[in-house]
Amino acid sequence: MNVGIVGGSGFTGMELLRLATLQPAWSVRVVTAQQHAGQAVADRVPSLAAAYPTLRFEALDPGGLDGLDLVFFCLPHGQSQEVVPSLVGRVGLVVDLAADFRLKDPAVYEAWYGGPHRAPELLGRFVYGLPELHRAELAGATLVAAPGCYPTAAALALRPFVDAGVVVPEDCLVDAASGVSGAGSGGGEATQFATVDGTFSAYGLPRHRHTPEIEQESGARVLFVPHLAPMTRGILATCYARLGPERTLDTAGALALLAERYRGEPFVVVDERLPTTKATLGSNAVHLSARVDERTGWLVVLAAIDNLVRGASGQAVQAANVALGAPETTGLSGVGVYP
Amino acid sequence: MNVGIVGGSGFTGMELLRLATLQPAWSVRVVTAQQHAGQAVADRVPSLAAAYPTLRFEALDPGGLDGLDLVFFCLPHGQSQEVVPSLVGRVGLVVDLAADFRLKDPAVYEAWYGGPHRAPELLGRFVYGLPELHRAELAGATLVAAPGCYPTAAALALRPFVDAGVVVPEDCLVDAASGVSGAGSGGGEATQFATVDGTFSAYGLPRHRHTPEIEQESGARVLFVPHLAPMTRGILATCYARLGPERTLDTAGALALLAERYRGEPFVVVDERLPTTKATLGSNAVHLSARVDERTGWLVVLAAIDNLVRGASGQAVQAANVALGAPETTGLSGVGVYP
Amino acid sequence: MNVGIVGGSGFTGMELLRLATLQPAWSVRVVTAQQHAGQAVADRVPSLAAAYPTLRFEALDPGGLDGLDLVFFCLPHGQSQEVVPSLVGRVGLVVDLAADFRLKDPAVYEAWYGGPHRAPELLGRFVYGLPELHRAELAGATLVAAPGCYPTAAALALRPFVDAGVVVPEDCLVDAASGVSGAGSGGGEATQFATVDGTFSAYGLPRHRHTPEIEQESGARVLFVPHLAPMTRGILATCYARLGPERTLDTAGALALLAERYRGEPFVVVDERLPTTKATLGSNAVHLSARVDERTGWLVVLAAIDNLVRGASGQAVQAANVALGAPETTGLSGVGVYP
Amino acid sequence: MNVGIVGGSGFTGMELLRLATLQPAWSVRVVTAQQHAGQAVADRVPSLAAAYPTLRFEALDPGGLDGLDLVFFCLPHGQSQEVVPSLVGRVGLVVDLAADFRLKDPAVYEAWYGGPHRAPELLGRFVYGLPELHRAELAGATLVAAPGCYPTAAALALRPFVDAGVVVPEDCLVDAASGVSGAGSGGGEATQFATVDGTFSAYGLPRHRHTPEIEQESGARVLFVPHLAPMTRGILATCYARLGPERTLDTAGALALLAERYRGEPFVVVDERLPTTKATLGSNAVHLSARVDERTGWLVVLAAIDNLVRGASGQAVQAANVALGAPETTGLSGVGVYP
Repeated sequence: MNVGIVGGSGFTGMELLRLATLQPAWSVRVVTAQQHAGQAVADRVPSLAAAYPTLRFEALDPGGLDGLDLVFFCLPHGQSQEVVPSLVGRVGLVVDLAADFRLKDPAVYEAWYGGPHRAPELLGRFVYGLPELHRAELAGATLVAAPGCYPTAAALALRPFVDAGVVVPEDCLVDAASGVSGAGSGGGEATQFATVDGTFSAYGLPRHRHTPEIEQESGARVLFVPHLAPMTRGILATCYARLGPERTLDTAGALALLAERYRGEPFVVVDERLPTTKATLGSNAVHLSARVDERTGWLVVLAAIDNLVRGASGQAVQAANVALGAPETTGLSGVGVYP
Repeated sequence: MNVGIVGGSGFTGMELLRLATLQPAWSVRVVTAQQHAGQAVADRVPSLAAAYPTLRFEALDPGGLDGLDLVFFCLPHGQSQEVVPSLVGRVGLVVDLAADFRLKDPAVYEAWYGGPHRAPELLGRFVYGLPELHRAELAGATLVAAPGCYPTAAALALRPFVDAGVVVPEDCLVDAASGVSGAGSGGGEATQFATVDGTFSAYGLPRHRHTPEIEQESGARVLFVPHLAPMTRGILATCYARLGPERTLDTAGALALLAERYRGEPFVVVDERLPTTKATLGSNAVHLSARVDERTGWLVVLAAIDNLVRGASGQAVQAANVALGAPETTGLSGVGVYP
Repeated sequence: MNVGIVGGSGFTGMELLRLATLQPAWSVRVVTAQQHAGQAVADRVPSLAAAYPTLRFEALDPGGLDGLDLVFFCLPHGQSQEVVPSLVGRVGLVVDLAADFRLKDPAVYEAWYGGPHRAPELLGRFVYGLPELHRAELAGATLVAAPGCYPTAAALALRPFVDAGVVVPEDCLVDAASGVSGAGSGGGEATQFATVDGTFSAYGLPRHRHTPEIEQESGARVLFVPHLAPMTRGILATCYARLGPERTLDTAGALALLAERYRGEPFVVVDERLPTTKATLGSNAVHLSARVDERTGWLVVLAAIDNLVRGASGQAVQAANVALGAPETTGLSGVGVYP
Repeated sequence: MNVGIVGGSGFTGMELLRLATLQPAWSVRVVTAQQHAGQAVADRVPSLAAAYPTLRFEALDPGGLDGLDLVFFCLPHGQSQEVVPSLVGRVGLVVDLAADFRLKDPAVYEAWYGGPHRAPELLGRFVYGLPELHRAELAGATLVAAPGCYPTAAALALRPFVDAGVVVPEDCLVDAASGVSGAGSGGGEATQFATVDGTFSAYGLPRHRHTPEIEQESGARVLFVPHLAPMTRGILATCYARLGPERTLDTAGALALLAERYRGEPFVVVDERLPTTKATLGSNAVHLSARVDERTGWLVVLAAIDNLVRGASGQAVQAANVALGAPETTGLSGVGVYP
């Protein structure tokens, strides 16, 4: 399997390079990075030195991607919709890690991303790459939109309850906290160590671009409020949904509903214990739990993931495995690096 | 002013010893600590070595507190209600940093703290030590219950909106994150560095003891969901309240409401910028902001404090200043140690 | 390959359980933990839930280890010398992660560990499990002493220069910094988050037990000064050696000497770039660099490892692979989880 | 006392603004910042909002500094030597926090800073602002060079032993670790959270510019090796000196020597306990300790400071107090913010 990574010098690109080392059948042929073209990957990413002693970043040459079996796009949002259309049919499988092709409705895209979509005709052809919710559509797909980090956690948490009709879907809240790597490697004062260390804050409030994606995939209407936590990796999504009028759901029932929905899923852990993000560090697992507060009538569902793995590159690999017909867990682990 | 600190070897006690160095009129005469009786304070708390080179912890001898002008109690919850009753009238001012005397209703105390209150007759005599909300009652008080950390942040955030009648008070959420010092110095696996570093998790869900205190002081009914962030100090309370049916409040209006309510308050900073907890580190300030999401009908109010200062010892000092008739800001700063 | 882990509830035990999931031929049959006997591994270590949904800790029953092909001992120092002697010949391969069998000279053990060795007759039979230095002896070994974390870094850094005769071996310094997981999972105030976060300190000075082990394996006499850094994993050893009288070595020469010594080693990365510990996180790699300061006549060699992987469990697996005749890199990666 | 701060938008400038709030006699009249001219200080530095609600950064206008009693310069290295000469005699006291005027010998400056000094005639007029070593010269001074962070720690540690003649001064090592704020607020990838969090590394090896300053102030010749620790503030300097041939010094003697040298000093804490940087956080204290290893013949002296306070702005204030004839401790505390 000949693989390419476009925009490989950022965090999701580095993570794909790491995960690729666990894929026996993959050969990374091309890694592009405009800013770092010519630089040795090991120079920029010392953690990869043992595995990629000679690989160098290249400038993006779309023609140079022709014939590859699998190409991951890790470009800044807004760019893959410019680049990908011309590659359809010229590469085996496209997996886009940006937000460009995640939303089904171009009008929603325009409302939230500040401008019309440049390739709306492709929106209907891309499959949303969250296997636990879209496995059937992913099989054999050639165009996959890897989900966003927060939406992955929120959708996996809320979808089962919305589908079961036990909550009021119009009235949900997703209060989440993420490590700083979710902001990407672009730098800037907001992500400087001295700015982030030892502090906690909210941002992107009230209109964060992940809102429509969360709503599309969870089936709920949500107010989404993200926060920045002083850590590098990890997302905890604390999702609130009002119990439906029957108010029959209790904590045990909520946990059972999750366990049943995700029975047999290799990467989903449902437990009574409240999840901690570090238990998923470096792994493709999602840890879920739930509580019902009868006094106030709220269901609280919690989902913990590693934002760079299950929230980006790991899930991209998982979706690619499904699309390519390989065993879904190939090259992926559900075991976190702990402590 | 002769001062005593009972239970002075924990974090709130250490913080009182630090703040006491900024009080020109105070003399710390007694610091008790059962476990560390006899140990030099500088040995246990090197940060205090320059100011307290000879002070030693003593065993608690209630008789030894007689005649002190001001005694702070920093005992584990449930103990001050055993000790304080016999001291009424024998010391000038009692400030209790535990939860024992914060709730007005002994039935509520019993429901949430797991057993009947041992000194219910005193509950009505203690004044809740949150000056911005109870300044008039605090003047001249001799029994002060220093508020809890999370309730301080949540009450300061929500009270103005509940009082103004612009939200639905029965339906609020308080989603908060705290640094680990909020758990006290007792140790245990849950607060080990390897357990807390680089991870984020929820706890105390759904029944956390601060819930009734938040409800008492904010006037709202709340689901309170605390989280542990990988930092030592700081609390950010993200408070959600539904807009009332008139739905007239917008973000500018919400900020104006806060600015007006807290006009002239030396320790309250209202700003359009979303607060970050570190801006209050080591200080008695509270930073507030708000946003209205018209699309979903929620008001979001955010409050950032240092849990050991404004959330405990600093506010205890502030309340003591008011009770003693000293300038309220004596020995306290609203300037954070940044970065 | 039937595998057992004795003392599996601590950090090195958890790490072995994680690494075992990457070994296709291994089956973990027994994991013992006195304090946690009966508890589900997934309960104590949520990061392992996806891989070990039913495994439970057991009480140690030496008879229950009979016939296992490979047993790792992760007991507190001083205990394996009590337990292991009776197992010789009853299990295939013993790998001890404690310090009990690392030192060759029982007199040195006694001087540094505070009491006579309980099984000195076995000291000569154990092979020191640092493959890059002892590969030949490890092949076919049945008793392996997995090296300590600091000694691993220091020995890999200094040994090449001592062997090449270009430094004065009697006069070396090893100034190292480690994350807190090196102290184990035993807890205590010294490793509480509030104690460790945001601070740096030295400890174990001047007599730290790793000193004789560093000296035995590096061939140098050293003053070893460890420090605790506010991180969970990682060791950086900054090793100082005086240039020999010829003073011919320069930086380029030092790097070339390391590159030549470790040519072909899958887990050793020699680079001009100064190493950062996180580049090795979760991996079995060691990153080395060096500088010569001609002005003062010192050689500085730096080694970065993950203290739980290359400094303990990963190297234990690597040594076991060699001893068992399996490809040395089986189940191990040199790629760090970054960022 | 009318005060100005030139280059006030960086970390040392912010810290001076915070410390200024503790000076009853000071009035901050001017704060300049080229990049942020016009911006409200509270906007850029929310921690200062409560104290400086209206103050704005201004562009630097040297004429605008005329007549000020005290001006602190916090410009990038190399700039104050361009600006200060024209201000001599036009402001009361100049305190420069950059390295420009710290070295006595212009030839040394040129060798280490890469170019000739632009105002060498002033070098002899500036007083090195480390009061514990230069108090007499500081009294009445009008030109003060505030010391560098690492040199402060190393000089306070080593000077007493060099002066006492009990070590070999030609053969010292200073191995130090610092929090990231020592790199300033300029940003860049090297100080991004994702780069610094959870990792430890060396840098500036072997020629770091602080080397000649350490040598000038300690009287020793040193190899200086700094490291970056994953924290925001704090420096621990672990200083190694060979015992002189008499080899009479032991640990008790070393501690006594430090205690005697610094007897009565309000900001120096000498203790048998090994220092931890956080004990000095936000304070102007330096915590010292020492150990002698008779086996290897090394003296190890450790010094912990807050790099932004005692390592920069706090010490600048302390030196200014001395120069102005005010009580040396005015507006400064030796008590750390802990935990």
